[in-house]
Amino acid sequence: MSVTAPQGFEASGVAAGLKSTGKPDVAVVVNRGPRKIGAAVFTTNRAKANPIIWSQQVIADRVVEAVVLNSGGANCFTGAFGFQTTHLTAEKAAELLDVSAGDVLVCSTGLIGTGDEVFRGKVLDGVERGIASLRVDGGDDAAAAIMTTDSVPKTATVTRDGWTIGGMAKGAGMLAPGLATMLVVITTDADLEASQADAALRRATAVSFDRLDSDGCMSTNDQVTLLANAASGIRPDLDDFAAALTELCRDLAEQLQADAEGASHSIAIEVKNAVTETEAVEVGRSVARNNLFKAAIFGNDPNWGRVLAAIGTTSAQFDPYDVDVSMNGVRVCTAGGPDRPREEVDLTPREVRIEIDLKMGDATATILTNDLTHDYVHENSAYAS
Amino acid sequence: MSVTAPQGFEASGVAAGLKSTGKPDVAVVVNRGPRKIGAAVFTTNRAKANPIIWSQQVIADRVVEAVVLNSGGANCFTGAFGFQTTHLTAEKAAELLDVSAGDVLVCSTGLIGTGDEVFRGKVLDGVERGIASLRVDGGDDAAAAIMTTDSVPKTATVTRDGWTIGGMAKGAGMLAPGLATMLVVITTDADLEASQADAALRRATAVSFDRLDSDGCMSTNDQVTLLANAASGIRPDLDDFAAALTELCRDLAEQLQADAEGASHSIAIEVKNAVTETEAVEVGRSVARNNLFKAAIFGNDPNWGRVLAAIGTTSAQFDPYDVDVSMNGVRVCTAGGPDRPREEVDLTPREVRIEIDLKMGDATATILTNDLTHDYVHENSAYAS
Repeated sequence: MSVTAPQGFEASGVAAGLKSTGKPDVAVVVNRGPRKIGAAVFTTNRAKANPIIWSQQVIADRVVEAVVLNSGGANCFTGAFGFQTTHLTAEKAAELLDVSAGDVLVCSTGLIGTGDEVFRGKVLDGVERGIASLRVDGGDDAAAAIMTTDSVPKTATVTRDGWTIGGMAKGAGMLAPGLATMLVVITTDADLEASQADAALRRATAVSFDRLDSDGCMSTNDQVTLLANAASGIRPDLDDFAAALTELCRDLAEQLQADAEGASHSIAIEVKNAVTETEAVEVGRSVARNNLFKAAIFGNDPNWGRVLAAIGTTSAQFDPYDVDVSMNGVRVCTAGGPDRPREEVDLTPREVRIEIDLKMGDATATILTNDLTHDYVHENSAYAS
Repeated sequence: MSVTAPQGFEASGVAAGLKSTGKPDVAVVVNRGPRKIGAAVFTTNRAKANPIIWSQQVIADRVVEAVVLNSGGANCFTGAFGFQTTHLTAEKAAELLDVSAGDVLVCSTGLIGTGDEVFRGKVLDGVERGIASLRVDGGDDAAAAIMTTDSVPKTATVTRDGWTIGGMAKGAGMLAPGLATMLVVITTDADLEASQADAALRRATAVSFDRLDSDGCMSTNDQVTLLANAASGIRPDLDDFAAALTELCRDLAEQLQADAEGASHSIAIEVKNAVTETEAVEVGRSVARNNLFKAAIFGNDPNWGRVLAAIGTTSAQFDPYDVDVSMNGVRVCTAGGPDRPREEVDLTPREVRIEIDLKMGDATATILTNDLTHDYVHENSAYAS
């Protein structure tokens, strides 16, 4: 049910011809109220696609009526014409829904540079048919329509005492085409103030999507949106809500990791006993972005030296000769030197767990990543041809 | 002739059994004077191999009598035993050369974690035979002995008015085994003060080896050494010397780039009209480290959107919608939008030139890198098996 699991939301997914396969490529999510609260986080890339530039304006007043999403074209680096396409998309939806265009978010994903006249026509047609197809159980259709090379749609639902959170996601790391764009729409019928929705979303994404670093590349189009309508009539405890939202975001992040194209391993890098959580994240990310480490995991090679060499490039507080490293439960490195024989480590399962003990403090963070494979290179070298 | 091109240096390369192939794996370079000046730059990785820890002590007084280098084992993360091996290596050489062990640099390259009793015995034996084999024309033997999976030895010579600089190099980026360690020894018979040698080396490496970023991974063992003996009796103009040294370092860096294992393209990323050189370097490096860009070049795909998306992650001063990008002479992006059709770009030659015009200032820098290929993944996943 994804985004239509909570009360008071409608959604749809239609085929507008943006995808050469003829599969659904335009999704619409509409909030029927009573409240129309929105919160969103965006890519921090300074090179932003037109939908990001538009949506950052829309979200300023924290009122959102609807979200229009398209796959099959990122509408990025498409100039003034491309921005106008985004604007027209929002206006078209607003007109049909009888709301303000300034309350319609737009998200796009696909090849950068795609956003010409033909693209515009198809998107606008898709909006019209998408809105005509809105259903209270349309969440799964919407989740399918935002897929690019995802092999499965990603959805999640969390229900607590009388209120529900639903979500859909696409993309993230190692996904052709383009820049591994991650689009996420989350809905809830809990009764939240706008500032509470915003705070909860930032808290949840900081420890979920922000810790998924599949290939170190940052998209121009990433957007994670939360819509809240109070349709349940229930005002949750804020910590409970934030915890439930975090659970849902982590679930979606793990689904993205599991489906990362070209990947043969899902790697969780747990950094323990750092001085601060920020340093734990920095250490985990340095390993997640190290191509030599990632290629070693692809080859089922427990090359702990590459882990230490990656950590050595950070500014985190640690002593290289006091660090322990375990791989899938086997401590291969103790205090910066060899421990158990590498032959004891079994890296054949898809799930790989790297534990790094910095022995400096008590902060912990886990970064999720994938391995660097032949298929990754293939997918990302060949998609445009 | 490499390191024995200048007067007053002797070198050798011998097979000590560290390489399973039986090829030469221990090299010795000795400065016969009259002066014994040394300068060196080291990896900035905080996880340093034992030879780095040792050599950083040796170089402190800027007096160097000899350099001992081995391939076939990095002697990194090998604990106190490994450090002792490095120490014994220097002592052995010092004893045979009748100099102080504190004036003998040690460099190692190969698999991390290699440094046991057997390794030690072979290295010490190699030192003995290497010193017995020293010759005034032994530079090429030394250059061959430091190779790991390099397909050719890298040497260069620059001669000016009565003085000469010679150099040898191995490694750098995409080189199995291990961490793409770069080892470089440069010799000169010019008459330099120690502070002048140090300044010239830092100036030259900053715009040559420091701008070669093949795969973004930093080794635990990198070392670039300059030995100066004044044997020519000529005191060069310092700017002339620095320029000649820079020319030689760039030559060696380009040889390393050209031989990067697994690579199918040598990519020069020229960033023009940045506000500062530091920002130009940051921008160039962000592109050089972007896996999606690197995979696109492997696929001969002029994907300029990935160039802009990479630049967007930097803190350099620029406007994404005012940047021009050319690929092999074809301007595919003007002011952040499409320009010439991608079909006009021919990326089939090994040499690829990316020009990025930030239109903000007048600083320029060029970063050298390689593409991300199937062979890169293969080499770096399989070497240890």
